Amino acid sequence: MTPDDATWILTASFVIFTMQTGFGLLESGAVTKKNEVNIMMKNAADVILGGITYWMFGYGFQYGSSPGTNPFIGVGSFFLDSNQDEMGIVFATFIFQLSFATTATTIASGAMAERTDFNAYCIFSLVNTLTYCIPAGWLWGGHGFLKNLGAIDFAGSSGVHLLGGCAAFVATVVLKPRLRRYDNGTAPLPMGNPINALVGTFTLWWGWLVFNCGSTFGITNDKWHYAGRAAITTINASLGAGLCGILFTYFKNRKFEIGDIINSILGGLVSITAGCAFFRPGESIFIGAVGGLFVISIQPMFDKIKVDDPVGAIAVHGGGGLWGMVAVGLFIESDPLLYLSRGRKGLFKGGGLYLLGVQLLSCLSIGVWSVTTTFLMLKGINIFRCIRMSPVEEVLGADYIEHNIRHDCFHYEDMMEDLERK
Amino acid sequence: MTPDDATWILTASFVIFTMQTGFGLLESGAVTKKNEVNIMMKNAADVILGGITYWMFGYGFQYGSSPGTNPFIGVGSFFLDSNQDEMGIVFATFIFQLSFATTATTIASGAMAERTDFNAYCIFSLVNTLTYCIPAGWLWGGHGFLKNLGAIDFAGSSGVHLLGGCAAFVATVVLKPRLRRYDNGTAPLPMGNPINALVGTFTLWWGWLVFNCGSTFGITNDKWHYAGRAAITTINASLGAGLCGILFTYFKNRKFEIGDIINSILGGLVSITAGCAFFRPGESIFIGAVGGLFVISIQPMFDKIKVDDPVGAIAVHGGGGLWGMVAVGLFIESDPLLYLSRGRKGLFKGGGLYLLGVQLLSCLSIGVWSVTTTFLMLKGINIFRCIRMSPVEEVLGADYIEHNIRHDCFHYEDMMEDLERK
Amino acid sequence: MTPDDATWILTASFVIFTMQTGFGLLESGAVTKKNEVNIMMKNAADVILGGITYWMFGYGFQYGSSPGTNPFIGVGSFFLDSNQDEMGIVFATFIFQLSFATTATTIASGAMAERTDFNAYCIFSLVNTLTYCIPAGWLWGGHGFLKNLGAIDFAGSSGVHLLGGCAAFVATVVLKPRLRRYDNGTAPLPMGNPINALVGTFTLWWGWLVFNCGSTFGITNDKWHYAGRAAITTINASLGAGLCGILFTYFKNRKFEIGDIINSILGGLVSITAGCAFFRPGESIFIGAVGGLFVISIQPMFDKIKVDDPVGAIAVHGGGGLWGMVAVGLFIESDPLLYLSRGRKGLFKGGGLYLLGVQLLSCLSIGVWSVTTTFLMLKGINIFRCIRMSPVEEVLGADYIEHNIRHDCFHYEDMMEDLERK
Repeated sequence: MTPDDATWILTASFVIFTMQTGFGLLESGAVTKKNEVNIMMKNAADVILGGITYWMFGYGFQYGSSPGTNPFIGVGSFFLDSNQDEMGIVFATFIFQLSFATTATTIASGAMAERTDFNAYCIFSLVNTLTYCIPAGWLWGGHGFLKNLGAIDFAGSSGVHLLGGCAAFVATVVLKPRLRRYDNGTAPLPMGNPINALVGTFTLWWGWLVFNCGSTFGITNDKWHYAGRAAITTINASLGAGLCGILFTYFKNRKFEIGDIINSILGGLVSITAGCAFFRPGESIFIGAVGGLFVISIQPMFDKIKVDDPVGAIAVHGGGGLWGMVAVGLFIESDPLLYLSRGRKGLFKGGGLYLLGVQLLSCLSIGVWSVTTTFLMLKGINIFRCIRMSPVEEVLGADYIEHNIRHDCFHYEDMMEDLERK
Repeated sequence: MTPDDATWILTASFVIFTMQTGFGLLESGAVTKKNEVNIMMKNAADVILGGITYWMFGYGFQYGSSPGTNPFIGVGSFFLDSNQDEMGIVFATFIFQLSFATTATTIASGAMAERTDFNAYCIFSLVNTLTYCIPAGWLWGGHGFLKNLGAIDFAGSSGVHLLGGCAAFVATVVLKPRLRRYDNGTAPLPMGNPINALVGTFTLWWGWLVFNCGSTFGITNDKWHYAGRAAITTINASLGAGLCGILFTYFKNRKFEIGDIINSILGGLVSITAGCAFFRPGESIFIGAVGGLFVISIQPMFDKIKVDDPVGAIAVHGGGGLWGMVAVGLFIESDPLLYLSRGRKGLFKGGGLYLLGVQLLSCLSIGVWSVTTTFLMLKGINIFRCIRMSPVEEVLGADYIEHNIRHDCFHYEDMMEDLERK
Repeated sequence: MTPDDATWILTASFVIFTMQTGFGLLESGAVTKKNEVNIMMKNAADVILGGITYWMFGYGFQYGSSPGTNPFIGVGSFFLDSNQDEMGIVFATFIFQLSFATTATTIASGAMAERTDFNAYCIFSLVNTLTYCIPAGWLWGGHGFLKNLGAIDFAGSSGVHLLGGCAAFVATVVLKPRLRRYDNGTAPLPMGNPINALVGTFTLWWGWLVFNCGSTFGITNDKWHYAGRAAITTINASLGAGLCGILFTYFKNRKFEIGDIINSILGGLVSITAGCAFFRPGESIFIGAVGGLFVISIQPMFDKIKVDDPVGAIAVHGGGGLWGMVAVGLFIESDPLLYLSRGRKGLFKGGGLYLLGVQLLSCLSIGVWSVTTTFLMLKGINIFRCIRMSPVEEVLGADYIEHNIRHDCFHYEDMMEDLERK
């Protein structure tokens, strides 16, 4: 690693952290006003509590290479520290990986909005690192079995997004729908603050460029060529997806529903993430368009089966992540400069089924892992502290109950009297 | 291009995209609440639809160098792609130029606020790329006649801002004023969300530093000296302009009107953009101050002639851009390191009238081009789809009509009853 | 300085400016709605007016090295300019220092919220540069007596934060509490817009990473190792502090008060700032935790003695800054790469009391300087223009009085009638 690489990696990390602001604003804008502060605090808790455990053991399970390391898990580098000579490399790697890890673990928070007890959520934030760090090692650690099989997930379609989407799915099922969510049908509820949701989307959009390009993890030695490619594929995917989102929502009901357009853009971004350094610009528009359409098409189905995901995290991250991994197995060409794909190609480029198979295996392994650990964690936490707010708390809203914040537009005294009478 | 240059160019591009968030928040905060979401969606459409056409033909018309290229237009590089060896340079250049292009095309959206049909606007976004990319080629493409005459527009006072300001002017004239806009005089209407307008301004302010400094398009080979100079001149211009804005609004009516202060800062930033790599720090304060004052002085005149520009885009970008180009012709010295000004100097530095003449010619060419193409585009679109919302739609607001968003502070049922009765 | 260093320094400067957006949103969200615009305008004034004086004389007093320079003050480089050969270094240094200076001078604005006359504040912004630039020279200028004694303040725990906290203390005392602030006890008042306060906190959080890492002031020659270390220590301190904040507020009253959590995170960040390039990651969690706890523990005491600081700036920046300087004297080891600590170590690492003594001397010198100059400035300004708003103005709020902005939630006509009757 050179000073140039350090500049690239550190700068990327700093910008990737701004995606927390993006997720926070998007989720906070999408839920009802009485929970808008609480959901942002959950994003803060993800950084604080998830960050501490990532430093304690997450990084070690992901990248450790001490004796005991095996294809399933790394060992070593716990409570990360370094000597003066190596600190540049070690700490820059850590801060970059931490910015990734906090992004991954925050995805589920949106799906759990408006009904999760904050105490229980804090415990979830602490242990959620485990769900992320182990498959991240499979994909990106020297020891990882998926890496050694040749799986390609350049910036995390499966390791970050599919993982987060599966966790979100389990969490919504365990939590059950919000009170009275489906009393008036399954149409999405209005957003509490659409402007904040849009500002959050914009913040994620530009942050994603850095997330994908920064995943070259360096700029020297031809890596910058891949960074340039990742930039154009990422933006093109979002353009294709955004276009489809606009057309889809318009032809559905002659309105431009911003929820669909937002989730389409994000779905396109998730889709391109696995192969952003390899796709061609034109293909990227197509991959993004398919991803965006797929995401907003499957989303209403979750509501139909009463899986209540207030922000659409399951469809965006789970659906988009799955398609992103498949797209790698279909579209990529071998890369002669860095040889990251080891000469393998996608099905449509004459590479046969091997790569596609490995990509699907990655999705399966990571999906099963995420579903299982998230389920066990939530059920485990539930023993000590009920993860679901009480109905009274839910009616009054988490902002008031957990943070003592009264919104002008609610009459808390009336609401409490009302609740007492019932 | 070296890895160091790639870091500079890509990082700059990522930050320049945040200016979309800035424009979105500023415009959304400046209009009435019933249109705040719609105007942000227009910014999103500019990126999505304008981005796709920029990739398809915009970049090619601007920078293409295939046979057929002539001083007026580039040919080639359509549907941009690249081979592995050149992709670093080609794609980094594209992403940087795209971040510029989307900034340019979004300027008009503010002036069109509160009365433009969203369908029609989407078509406008698609074709608007044409207005930008061709004069950008004149100024910055190897083939461009203005470049070869020696015109200097380092970061786009004319190519981005004057162009956008002229488009904004034509659009407001074609669209006509908002309903009842001038019933109670020509004073500016109150902002719907002044905090968002200020946050947007701040975002643009810091983004502008990157926009101007990043326009060195590289950091090695003495380019970093110019980047340093662009940083101090850009910030100094905003300081001079901000000071004048504060004094102007105070002496006008003993209040500190934030609309004037915002537009003064932005006007100063526009003014410095053409020559930011060449001016001296002290001159920059002066140039910014003149630009800021000029902008906020001419703005009320547009209202007097009933040119209804809700955010002041014509004055800020058109007025500031014109003065910025003139300032280059007056103030710059020759630059011995990169020889970008080809040894020419401004009038006040003993360089005679040639440079000033070329600068004015650039303004004239770009102004005429922008006015003409924008007029033809809007009139053309109007044939297929009325670009102006119906009066009923306008009263109810685009957020409700186009996006199905109801704001708490409006009583849509009452408003509709009211309208029916009339 | 190389092009690589320029990239690092300039990019860092651009991100540090975003901390103005962060401070603006945090302060604006923390105060009552009727002053939310005014407090953001004060942040803008700090950049505009403080920036101009920093260019005129601030930079010169801090870094000047012309004849007349002595251990107390630099002389030279006034109205900063440069020739073509040196402009890269000189201007990059200026823009970086300016981003620091504007951050320092804006700290007091929060403490002065809701009762300071805007005219008077503008004069304060102009002269406040003096308070900052002279001790900055003591710490970081070649001439500075604290630097030459061996004081270590890597990124400004004393030079930026303690200084700002002391200024905030004096300003609150001189201004006296807001009208009726303590009529119903000393508990903190509800925030006007908690979401904006949180978004501001997030913006500061990520900006702080750049602020601390960028303080290597370059990336080549082993500096990047220190940048990596500063990244992990800064984030770890915020994690430790955030954890303590969450636990503290929960055990205090079974609620998660966001004011406490925000100030705890910020307190941790302030605490790590002085020694961020030297601490170990585990120590950083501890130092941040102590800093966060210290800050939110002392904050209620200020309210008890009726020092009315609406945003907690005194505790966060003053308290955190003091502890940060002490922590350097306790914890740091010598750094063999760049030898910034000159072989000295903290008390707990066997370095004896010398370093701790110098750190305390720095705090004392800077504290006394800040208190004295701020007091004299405010009293001086008060002669020409009353720094306190009139009671009528304060009741109506600065947004209406100074900026002619009416918030929907206030009935200004009723308020005015009410006031007239009294």
